[in-house]
Amino acid sequence: MTQFDLPGSPGGARHTARLEAGASAASDTSFDPRTGASNGAIAHTSAAQVEQVVAAAGAVAERFAQTSPAERREMLRAVADAVDASAAELVWLADRETGLGETRLKSEVARLASQLRFYADVCAEGSWLRATLDEAGDASSSLARVQVPLGPVAVFGASNFPFAFGVLGNDTASALAAGCPVVAKAHPAHPMLSVRLGEIATSALASAGAAAGVFDVVVGFEAGKQLVLDPHVRAVGFTGSQNGGLALWRLANERREVIPVFAEMGTVNPVVVTTDAATDPQRVATGFVSSMTLGAGQFCTKPGLLLAPEGAGLADALGAAVSATQIHPMLTAAMAAGVSRGVEAYEAAGGQVIGTGSGASAGWSAAPTVVHVPAELFTRESVFAEECFGPVGLVVEYTDRAHLESLLAQLQGSLVATVASSGPHDPETADLVALLARSVGRVTVDDWPTGVAWTWAQQHGGPWPATSAPASTSVGAAALDRFTRPVAFQNLPDSALPPALRHDNPWGLPRRINGRMN
Amino acid sequence: MTQFDLPGSPGGARHTARLEAGASAASDTSFDPRTGASNGAIAHTSAAQVEQVVAAAGAVAERFAQTSPAERREMLRAVADAVDASAAELVWLADRETGLGETRLKSEVARLASQLRFYADVCAEGSWLRATLDEAGDASSSLARVQVPLGPVAVFGASNFPFAFGVLGNDTASALAAGCPVVAKAHPAHPMLSVRLGEIATSALASAGAAAGVFDVVVGFEAGKQLVLDPHVRAVGFTGSQNGGLALWRLANERREVIPVFAEMGTVNPVVVTTDAATDPQRVATGFVSSMTLGAGQFCTKPGLLLAPEGAGLADALGAAVSATQIHPMLTAAMAAGVSRGVEAYEAAGGQVIGTGSGASAGWSAAPTVVHVPAELFTRESVFAEECFGPVGLVVEYTDRAHLESLLAQLQGSLVATVASSGPHDPETADLVALLARSVGRVTVDDWPTGVAWTWAQQHGGPWPATSAPASTSVGAAALDRFTRPVAFQNLPDSALPPALRHDNPWGLPRRINGRMN
Repeated sequence: MTQFDLPGSPGGARHTARLEAGASAASDTSFDPRTGASNGAIAHTSAAQVEQVVAAAGAVAERFAQTSPAERREMLRAVADAVDASAAELVWLADRETGLGETRLKSEVARLASQLRFYADVCAEGSWLRATLDEAGDASSSLARVQVPLGPVAVFGASNFPFAFGVLGNDTASALAAGCPVVAKAHPAHPMLSVRLGEIATSALASAGAAAGVFDVVVGFEAGKQLVLDPHVRAVGFTGSQNGGLALWRLANERREVIPVFAEMGTVNPVVVTTDAATDPQRVATGFVSSMTLGAGQFCTKPGLLLAPEGAGLADALGAAVSATQIHPMLTAAMAAGVSRGVEAYEAAGGQVIGTGSGASAGWSAAPTVVHVPAELFTRESVFAEECFGPVGLVVEYTDRAHLESLLAQLQGSLVATVASSGPHDPETADLVALLARSVGRVTVDDWPTGVAWTWAQQHGGPWPATSAPASTSVGAAALDRFTRPVAFQNLPDSALPPALRHDNPWGLPRRINGRMN
Repeated sequence: MTQFDLPGSPGGARHTARLEAGASAASDTSFDPRTGASNGAIAHTSAAQVEQVVAAAGAVAERFAQTSPAERREMLRAVADAVDASAAELVWLADRETGLGETRLKSEVARLASQLRFYADVCAEGSWLRATLDEAGDASSSLARVQVPLGPVAVFGASNFPFAFGVLGNDTASALAAGCPVVAKAHPAHPMLSVRLGEIATSALASAGAAAGVFDVVVGFEAGKQLVLDPHVRAVGFTGSQNGGLALWRLANERREVIPVFAEMGTVNPVVVTTDAATDPQRVATGFVSSMTLGAGQFCTKPGLLLAPEGAGLADALGAAVSATQIHPMLTAAMAAGVSRGVEAYEAAGGQVIGTGSGASAGWSAAPTVVHVPAELFTRESVFAEECFGPVGLVVEYTDRAHLESLLAQLQGSLVATVASSGPHDPETADLVALLARSVGRVTVDDWPTGVAWTWAQQHGGPWPATSAPASTSVGAAALDRFTRPVAFQNLPDSALPPALRHDNPWGLPRRINGRMN
């Protein structure tokens, strides 16, 4: 094992990373996006090490599956406590690798701990086990069904939320809650943070009684591919780009035993402005630009398209609003380049830049930009129907309801759509909500789409290609469902049933018995 | 429109089938499996007609999605009543095309009506909508989530259950219950019955107030492919062979917008005999052979492999039991040929036929057969790890628990596994149930696997390739889940929410509010 050591780390913590003697020299270099300078390198996990890590996850899977929901609640709470205890160090490290700033990262690390506790509580509540019992009748056998964990899950976190959607994020927390061991891949945009979070979680899980192998982190692109193809791995969670997510989905489809890939991917996320709301273009434009530039536009829920009534002055207002914004560093050099390339492609296809942010460009920065697109050019085959990741938005003007519907029909599925209305009595809202709900996973009214609460009712997903599994969510209580499958037991003696289905209900679960909830 | 007319049909009913003037001459020939003689031909639906049918389903989808669960309950009940009213005619027609016999078909047509009423009740109960409300807090917006129908579903029924898994079977009933229009493909092994069932359902749905386009049947292989690729179609339900199901899955994966394929496919379905149960080999052998030959072994839940303690005499007992059985017609010429080919392949690979049924062979018949396989030849790459559809079973002897586990590890996922025990106090049962549950969707003890009840707790699915979507079931209350996806609504005025989420709960649904069930 070697260590990495960053000068200035709070508490002088030393960060260890696996690097066996004689291992491949390949590594992920950690960069400071504010300067583009290297923070150091984290060695890739060798193929032999990945095999070992996954085999350990496979070996422990049955035992971990048999822990009670209450036991797993305590394990997840221990991880949350450990994250809280290391918050200062983690924020420092994350800022060094992401440039997202202390304020945002402090709030995000607190969110990570809160999420872990939320999934812990959902796990213990037990509805997700869907315990269902049909008692034996004169002509029928008893039948009882419960959700069982799938087994080891490979998690690919996102670049843009190093905590909330990172190696300990929603996918990992919900998979552990569901009783599945997790092997997470370190994100190349924050490899040191990924490895450090892994150390913190591994140690907290052990202290809470989890067996070795329940959680681990591997590093490197090849290690990620190996995870998806390893027979021990039974599901994949991914947050990131369509290219990345669909590549993993295709890879998993080539396995002898195909496994589900829950890829939550970037989408356009349209905003529709009603006729009445358009009477105050400045209010709408300010809100849109502020949501579009949050975190330098590096949100999968970034509103990327504003559909406004023609002639209401929204384009002008957006131009003014975006011109008042500042340049901000992007997470990676590739993302900064992607913004320039994206804006150029929009211009080449007939879009017109109507405003850009300003300020000194340092490191990997990008200027917030709004592009006006003539409606007749907005077609499904055009670049305008594709997401540009970063602080970039499009504005298209519609003439009437039918025109609006034809424009929306050019879009692929999105994670979220927004109605900007004139208030609770806007006559257009209900109809627009119904229209937008057909092609997204969440509709929000007068509330910008960027925030994603981790609650019982949340749905963070959407029709293809917003996710590769449109019936799933990667945030909220239902996130556990992804990592389970149902098994029915017919005519079993009570002693042979799993605890969730035994007569005395030892886990105190809500259960459906003969069709009625108990 | 042309008609087909079979002499001897009860009530002298005439059966109509679409055949436009000038349409392609391609058709499905209906055969009598008892003789191999033709009953007549049903013309394939032309590409233009398929397009029209699917467009009609697409056009009505939004309206159908907005019907209340109680309205859809009445529609499904109307179909069930119409099936009951036509039972005699349907049984006559089904027997002519399948040779399954009046007793079995009478019971299956009654089952079809019962299933339709079951899904009607599940629909109206409303738990499947998973209505979940998080009320607004000081720092958070309100969030409410509900399952919405996916839109038109293409259904490919099975050959072996012309009623229960046919054009009005579990897939169609659960999709309609979930609020999705259905376009079913007629099965080439019973095209006349498929078309007739379609007529009965279409007319019953219309009389119950369903809009045109909610249900239709198309005929022909090309029509089926066209369904899967049509952008209006949002999901596929399939019951049949692995070849067929995986071909549809691959086709759907090539779409611009990939859609879920719920293919429930044939599997080996192992039976494990405990040491204590093996002391009465005749009892076990009789039960196994009787389950294996039910419906000429043409069940996806047929037990295809018996794993018995070495030296307990199970092989001899099976040989004797199967020798007492009779030859029976298979559903199609291809299936009959498949049995001969399968047995030959087992023999060529080192298996030994230890007993066959007897009787005069007429039409497309197959003799029940049990093959003994030396344990060392039973590997995942061998033909022994593949299902042979029909009245064919394998017996393999294991030496101890570790050997048994290594044999089970050669198998792909199965729909169901069985433990043949010595009774409720058999000490091996609990451990074997836990072992088998890892790779199947249902475990049954001292109850042969062939029957699949349509109840709240049923799970009819299993790990890949038992189904292409291991978290789904094609039978039971949870079958509706396949055809829905969640949508969350954030910060909406009550008037813009769908009925399932409105404050006054007009559909009277069970709902989770702020984390608690109400």
